Order: sequence, then C-alpha cells, then structure tokens
Amino acid sequence: MLSKNKVKFIKSLRLKKFRQKYNNFIVEGDKMVRELLAEAPHNVAELYALDDWLASVEEVGEVNRERLVSVTPEELKRISSLNTPNQVLAVSLIPEARVDPDKLPQALSLYLDGIQDPGNFGTILRIADWFGLSYVFSSPDCVDAYNPKAVQASMGALFRVVSIETGLEALCRGRPGLPVYGAVMDGENVFHAPLGQKGGIIVIGSEGSGISPAVEPYLSHRISIPPAAHSRADSLNAAVAAGILCAVFRERAGR
Amino acid sequence: MLSKNKVKFIKSLRLKKFRQKYNNFIVEGDKMVRELLAEAPHNVAELYALDDWLASVEEVGEVNRERLVSVTPEELKRISSLNTPNQVLAVSLIPEARVDPDKLPQALSLYLDGIQDPGNFGTILRIADWFGLSYVFSSPDCVDAYNPKAVQASMGALFRVVSIETGLEALCRGRPGLPVYGAVMDGENVFHAPLGQKGGIIVIGSEGSGISPAVEPYLSHRISIPPAAHSRADSLNAAVAAGILCAVFRERAGR
Repeated sequence: MLSKNKVKFIKSLRLKKFRQKYNNFIVEGDKMVRELLAEAPHNVAELYALDDWLASVEEVGEVNRERLVSVTPEELKRISSLNTPNQVLAVSLIPEARVDPDKLPQALSLYLDGIQDPGNFGTILRIADWFGLSYVFSSPDCVDAYNPKAVQASMGALFRVVSIETGLEALCRGRPGLPVYGAVMDGENVFHAPLGQKGGIIVIGSEGSGISPAVEPYLSHRISIPPAAHSRADSLNAAVAAGILCAVFRERAGR
Repeated sequence: MLSKNKVKFIKSLRLKKFRQKYNNFIVEGDKMVRELLAEAPHNVAELYALDDWLASVEEVGEVNRERLVSVTPEELKRISSLNTPNQVLAVSLIPEARVDPDKLPQALSLYLDGIQDPGNFGTILRIADWFGLSYVFSSPDCVDAYNPKAVQASMGALFRVVSIETGLEALCRGRPGLPVYGAVMDGENVFHAPLGQKGGIIVIGSEGSGISPAVEPYLSHRISIPPAAHSRADSLNAAVAAGILCAVFRERAGR
C-alpha cells in the first residue's frame, strides 16, 4: 500500500527541481528497468512493480529484494508518468559523473548547447552509446538527461553514457589544443573538413537559435552538413545532425 | 461560431480512417500553417484562426479569404490536438501523389518499412527535404504521413516532399536494375559499400523488428552503420539511421 507522501514524492521527480533536491530520477517500463538493473543495480533506491513482474525478476540478478515493492495496477497508474503504465517503475539515484582530465583530449564527446526537447536529448544519448562516445556534456539551459521523456528516448543509453551538465569554458580552460567543432549552417562540409584526430568536442546548438553567443568563441572549427542544392528546408532535427556528425567523425578520424 | 458537427469533423481527422474518408488532414500552429500557405495555398480547405492571427495574414498572400474562419481561444481549444493551441488550425486536402516512372531510377528515395512512430516519420520527411530526396515511400503498416504528430515533426517538409504509401514490390516490378539498399545490422559499412549511382531506394525498417520478411527479397544491397567496437547499444533511432545513410549517399554517390 503506497502512502500519500510516497506518491507525492515519486510524482515530484517529474520536475528537475525535485530531481536535483533528492538526487533521484524515475525509470519506467519493463525494458528500461531491466536495463537499469543490468547496468546499475546499486543505484536502485526503490522499485514498484506488479506481482507478475516481480515473479519474473528472479532472472535479473543483483537487485536488492528489500527495495522491491508490490503495487496494484491502480497504484502504478497513480505514480506513472506514462499514458499506459508498463508493469514497473524504479526510483534510481542520479550517478555522480566526473570528467577524467587525461581522457578528454583523446576522447570524442558531444556538447549540447540549449537543447530543449527531451526526446532529442535521449536520442542523442543513444547515438553516443552507439558510437562509443566518452561524454555527453550539456549547457545548464538544456533539458536535463533525467527528464522522464529523455530517459525513455535514450532506450537505456543513459545508464552507459557519461552525461554531465557544465559550461563549455570549464572544459576548454587550460586545454588550448582541444578541437571544438561547432555545427553551423555556413561551416565546412564535415566530409571534407580536416578532422585528423581522435579527440575533440562536437557542439550541437538548439534547432531554433543555433549555437549560443556564450559558446561560439570556444569553437576551433566550424563544420556543416550540406543540404541538397535546391533544398528549401530550414534545418535538420538536432539529434539527426548529431548522428550524422558522429558517424562521419568515427569513420574519418578513426575508431 | 463553430457548429457541433464542424468540431466533430475536425476532431475526427486525428484518426487515419477519417483522414482517408474525407481526404483531409490537420495542420496546426503559426509556423506550420504559414508553411502550408506558402507551399500549397490551393490545398487549404478551411482555416480557423484567432483574430490577431487573421489580422497578420495579409503578408501571407495567396490564401482564399472565404476559407478563413475567426474563432475564439475557447473554440480553438476545442478543435486543437495540441496541448497548447497555437493561434491557427487549417484543414488541408491530402495532395495526390504519383511516382514518375522515368524519374525513379535517377532519383534517391527512401522506403519506410513498418515505421510506427509519427515523430520519426515526420523527422524522416525533414531529412528527405534537406537532402533533396525525390520520394518517401512507406509500407501500408507504417503510421501515415498525415498523422498530426508526423505533420508537426516534419516542420513543413511534408508540403515539399512527395510521400506515397505503396508496397515495395510495385516499385521494383519491371525495374530489375534499380538498386535497393537495406539498412541491416550485418550489412556492409555504408562508408565503404559500392554505391556509385545517383539513383536507388534506401529501405529503413522499424526499430523493433527491422526490415520485414515481405521486403527483404527486394534488397539488392545490405548496408549498415557500424557501431563502436565495444558498444552495447541495441540500435540507433530509425530517423537518425535514415539521416546518416542519406548524408553518406549524397556525399559518396554525388549530388
């Protein structure tokens, strides 16, 4: 039986303010919770599930039984942020994430500048997971990686990719040689741009306003994905642009 | 003043069944409706807008004044499928779209096989618009291009890209030399695959089940986007995969 306070606490985690206050976030649904249990079982604070799901959890392994709470479909509906609640909801700790200063110059990373759409953020985490990127950094005005829609769109990538909210200047300080590639409309075609190194940061701006004036001075290279000659399209989706750039970098700069 | 029947009609267009029955679909919000008016003003059947928006429509040009209906914010809310209705809602004819048999072998096109997510479908239309693709074909079990969420995600591309629901066999019949590239997990790296021609069809399967058995026999080439060596990601988002493949094709096979 879920107390009123518990329901209130879980629902509060839909808001960034409370995720930060409690250092907790929500993971929902069979697939996503199994990914969480496989990748970070020690982070599970509480796990609310239907009896049928709990009966199947044997297979999952390492989860601490004390943290499992049986709920009815009605109770799950009260705490779920999905239109169609799916068997299980976990409350996870937000893992501590740090930049390894030695790793940064050798690593390929993304920096998201003002990305507001949580679906795009989650999709970009999935891209980073696919291409083995070391970090996904994000500006403080981005949606956060632990937004429920970002978590869902990441399809589990969130548990494998290191995601850190930080200013770009903090990453560039004391690293004058670090390449910072900005995706801009009038940049050099990424297929022909001089990449040549394994490491660097690719900056993706928001679809509406592009790369912000605060970030612009840190770009060492300006790159683009050229449209067709007669295209009248304004822009590509931010996650699609990130995917194309990561694919080309991995191919051209070496795996 | 909107009649009950009118409200019922407009709301019915959220469902594919009624879009097909009436051959109409909904376009919502200032940006999208302006794109519609710029690209296909003759398709506008009805246009419901707040007075402020109507006062600004002078600039838009070609719209037929008889089709403009002033509505109150409350009325707009009743007919809108957006959480936050945005000034204007248009009912548009679904344009007739046909394949030009002479164009197909020279054209680069996409074939979507079982894509269920309307956001992905719209994002793929936007990709096709950016890279100047001739057609976006889709299997009958795809979500349709005129789903309200697909329309929104396309950011206007829907009005510029030719989108046709058809079986792949109908496209391949009588065209034995037409290259059909399937995006599969174990295909050849798209960066190294022999492309060499301007024309062809790129097939994108659903994220859950990949390319269907009905479509598989028509593939002439199997291509892939290789993950990083130690990646544990299952897959890329379907729209991201489509974007990467279109970018690489355009670059390698020539614009």
